[in-house]
Amino acid sequence: MKTNPGRFFEDYRIGEVIAHAVPRTVSGGERALYHALYPARGALYSSDEFARASGLPASPLDDLIAFHVVFGKTVPDISLNAVANLGYAEGRWLAPVYPGDTLRSESEVIGLKENSNGKSGVVYVRTTGRNQHGTPVLDYVRWVMVRKNRETAAPDPVVPKLQAVVSPEALVFPAGLDFSNYDFALAGEPHRWGDYAVGEKIDHVDGVTVEEAEHMLATRLWQNTAKVHFDATFREDGRRLIYGGHVISMARALSFNGLANAQMIVALNGGAHANPCFAGDTVRAWSEVLDKAETAAPGVGAIRLRLVAVKSGAAPFALRDEAGKYLPEVLLDLDYWALMPL
Amino acid sequence: MKTNPGRFFEDYRIGEVIAHAVPRTVSGGERALYHALYPARGALYSSDEFARASGLPASPLDDLIAFHVVFGKTVPDISLNAVANLGYAEGRWLAPVYPGDTLRSESEVIGLKENSNGKSGVVYVRTTGRNQHGTPVLDYVRWVMVRKNRETAAPDPVVPKLQAVVSPEALVFPAGLDFSNYDFALAGEPHRWGDYAVGEKIDHVDGVTVEEAEHMLATRLWQNTAKVHFDATFREDGRRLIYGGHVISMARALSFNGLANAQMIVALNGGAHANPCFAGDTVRAWSEVLDKAETAAPGVGAIRLRLVAVKSGAAPFALRDEAGKYLPEVLLDLDYWALMPL
Amino acid sequence: MKTNPGRFFEDYRIGEVIAHAVPRTVSGGERALYHALYPARGALYSSDEFARASGLPASPLDDLIAFHVVFGKTVPDISLNAVANLGYAEGRWLAPVYPGDTLRSESEVIGLKENSNGKSGVVYVRTTGRNQHGTPVLDYVRWVMVRKNRETAAPDPVVPKLQAVVSPEALVFPAGLDFSNYDFALAGEPHRWGDYAVGEKIDHVDGVTVEEAEHMLATRLWQNTAKVHFDATFREDGRRLIYGGHVISMARALSFNGLANAQMIVALNGGAHANPCFAGDTVRAWSEVLDKAETAAPGVGAIRLRLVAVKSGAAPFALRDEAGKYLPEVLLDLDYWALMPL
Repeated sequence: MKTNPGRFFEDYRIGEVIAHAVPRTVSGGERALYHALYPARGALYSSDEFARASGLPASPLDDLIAFHVVFGKTVPDISLNAVANLGYAEGRWLAPVYPGDTLRSESEVIGLKENSNGKSGVVYVRTTGRNQHGTPVLDYVRWVMVRKNRETAAPDPVVPKLQAVVSPEALVFPAGLDFSNYDFALAGEPHRWGDYAVGEKIDHVDGVTVEEAEHMLATRLWQNTAKVHFDATFREDGRRLIYGGHVISMARALSFNGLANAQMIVALNGGAHANPCFAGDTVRAWSEVLDKAETAAPGVGAIRLRLVAVKSGAAPFALRDEAGKYLPEVLLDLDYWALMPL
Repeated sequence: MKTNPGRFFEDYRIGEVIAHAVPRTVSGGERALYHALYPARGALYSSDEFARASGLPASPLDDLIAFHVVFGKTVPDISLNAVANLGYAEGRWLAPVYPGDTLRSESEVIGLKENSNGKSGVVYVRTTGRNQHGTPVLDYVRWVMVRKNRETAAPDPVVPKLQAVVSPEALVFPAGLDFSNYDFALAGEPHRWGDYAVGEKIDHVDGVTVEEAEHMLATRLWQNTAKVHFDATFREDGRRLIYGGHVISMARALSFNGLANAQMIVALNGGAHANPCFAGDTVRAWSEVLDKAETAAPGVGAIRLRLVAVKSGAAPFALRDEAGKYLPEVLLDLDYWALMPL
Repeated sequence: MKTNPGRFFEDYRIGEVIAHAVPRTVSGGERALYHALYPARGALYSSDEFARASGLPASPLDDLIAFHVVFGKTVPDISLNAVANLGYAEGRWLAPVYPGDTLRSESEVIGLKENSNGKSGVVYVRTTGRNQHGTPVLDYVRWVMVRKNRETAAPDPVVPKLQAVVSPEALVFPAGLDFSNYDFALAGEPHRWGDYAVGEKIDHVDGVTVEEAEHMLATRLWQNTAKVHFDATFREDGRRLIYGGHVISMARALSFNGLANAQMIVALNGGAHANPCFAGDTVRAWSEVLDKAETAAPGVGAIRLRLVAVKSGAAPFALRDEAGKYLPEVLLDLDYWALMPL
């Protein structure tokens, strides 16, 4: 067998480190495509001049480009035989990614728990993305349910203790980041960190009807090759499931309208792909301010946000039903820290 | 309200200068996408070598990329509550845009005239795009009909005097531009400035059937976020209106076949989006030579062209009905000056 | 007539050299788009670091980008009035193409044979792509059937002798190429040159359902403007024929799964677009090892592969019917040499 069958639950060992294939050099091309695929307007990720005025050497690539590139590489080793993507935790962006950087990623297996049915199990990995200097640019924990392929004894269950939220003290800022001279007019909205209150909810108003060609372009761009996104003959219903990360980027870009100054994503506390998204769906988004924290960087505050993507027709700010289950219109429930000018 | 409700007619003041948000650094990525989105083949915008042989330091980005980027930034401030885009005038390209340049734009309100119904009014703005050095790269006048949101007294009407045509003396050429050694074989057609006669009409032959994914990619790339282009639930008929600029670029690119040597756009005299364009339409184009002028640049002539985009099935060169109204197949009627080798 | 009517059979002369129009400077933008359009994961074409470890100065653009750019330029002069694209032979990649390079192409007419019906004839051209230094990057022979437009005497038939296969001795390697320290983990698969046997067949498993927007983006990116790919009103059945090169790139990218280490394409021995491909088709691919050869480059072996693209539903490895005709599910049958680590 020359082709990659993917790993099954019994193929993982606690402590094992998997170096994922296909390092990737990124350029202005990835940035242009990101702007074509999503209504991304964050000034820091759009303008070298704006980035320099914020203390960075140039405009970095969107934080979610870094995430998608690092994540995409893990698919052939982690989720090719996954039944479900169960969660994210302890994600932190550790250094900006600039055009010309080369990214690679590796994952350490930090948890294994076979399901009682003996047919699958949960694999926990901590994935780290690194640039060409070996500097970590991102790490996060992800756990997925993976099928078993052979009858093997269940391993001793190891379930890692994961923080529910990345603590503000653990957030990492790019060297030199300074929002003291932040230009709110150029950034697009006047609202600063102090203008947001914990508990506040924002409907981001805009919607985007998604197309097959677009989600496939995006997903391929991250070298994520899971069959279900590309092959209309794969699912019985003939539909191509949209990569969850496409919904993350779409919702984050839509959140510009109301959160234009939540410039940098610095942590991913958690996230759930609540329901599948398909071409033809019109994606909308709303946010809730979950927490706020001061930081040591000049002029910079941290804001913890819940970002929810829904399909058109969802009731305002509706998330779960009475039983605590996500409503069928909810596509994504993401919990992240961003940086804002004070 | 954290989200941007847009400005209404009563929010504009004569003389007011609006700095539009989200400056944008462009790269080879935008150029590659432009070539993927439109059948653009102008040699000056395709090859560094060809551009150097024409006296430029490198191949600039297509003139319409500059236009779209500058225009896109104005949408949240000027046309979010627009009922109609009424016209363009006095547009001039003032400096080429190169990969690595950062563009921003600002608009001065130069005219205001409330409609007699008291429910809307016409806003005239002169928009200027500038690069990172503050050098103007483009300016043009645009007027739009904008809704009123509150009952306010009508302002004193101010309607700017606009030139019907940019005079040839006012055209600006890139420093060093020289077509003396123009390579017609590499450019794709043998026809020089002297080969075109005023009144001549050219059917550009080719057609492109447009897709939802493509016009949305294009429109987002310019950070134009008007809902009507993206959200299939926005209009009652469930159709997404294609950004008028997408039709401009498509028609201009199609006009290569017959006008391959009309290399640079240097002025926009006027333009009308005669009818809406939707996915599934097959766009064709024809041109009419309106005027010609000599220039001071070596080997360079100016040609004034009417560029008409139509839907498949339009009669040859048909534009208006007997009452002077645009025919329903006509999408665009654009009047511009281009530069050609003598 | 200002527009290009294309050449007809009677317009070609043996020995004539046609300089094709519109030179093209390529950048990271073309690379990013290529990764968005095809599931391309070859590490050498993805990572500057990987390319440097293989003795190259940086990651080149995909070999098929070079092919498409060079090929696209020939369309207005060679195949605008073509009835059929009959074959390829003696294709060799002669130098890598890097971001910043400017490509142009020219074709020499090396064969002419009028058909007995007097209505068309076969034109053989040898096309050469060159970079801005005049260095050839690619050459190949292609023959097409072209319509006659006027009644003319048939030219003396000249049919060039073409090699069925580029001999391994004639393969050209980039200066410095060295796979001695090849990182199989980063490349994505452990299988080296020695692991493949002549006669071995590999089903590449994955499939991609193709969309109108995607093939048009791709085809325009190569400035290939043949009407049949873009204009839904051109064919009687309202379908847009997908550019054969889109199928080549799709199949080659899909072949990563099983041939991840067949890194560089160095020769095109032949190829047939067996059946047309349309949007909605799900493209799959399989390969057969046709030959192997040692090379003088350190750590580098050559492998000759048959790459077959099929539509979903094709029987495993089925190619031709009993009469020797391609099965209707077969889209492409390509014969090429690639380089692999020993």
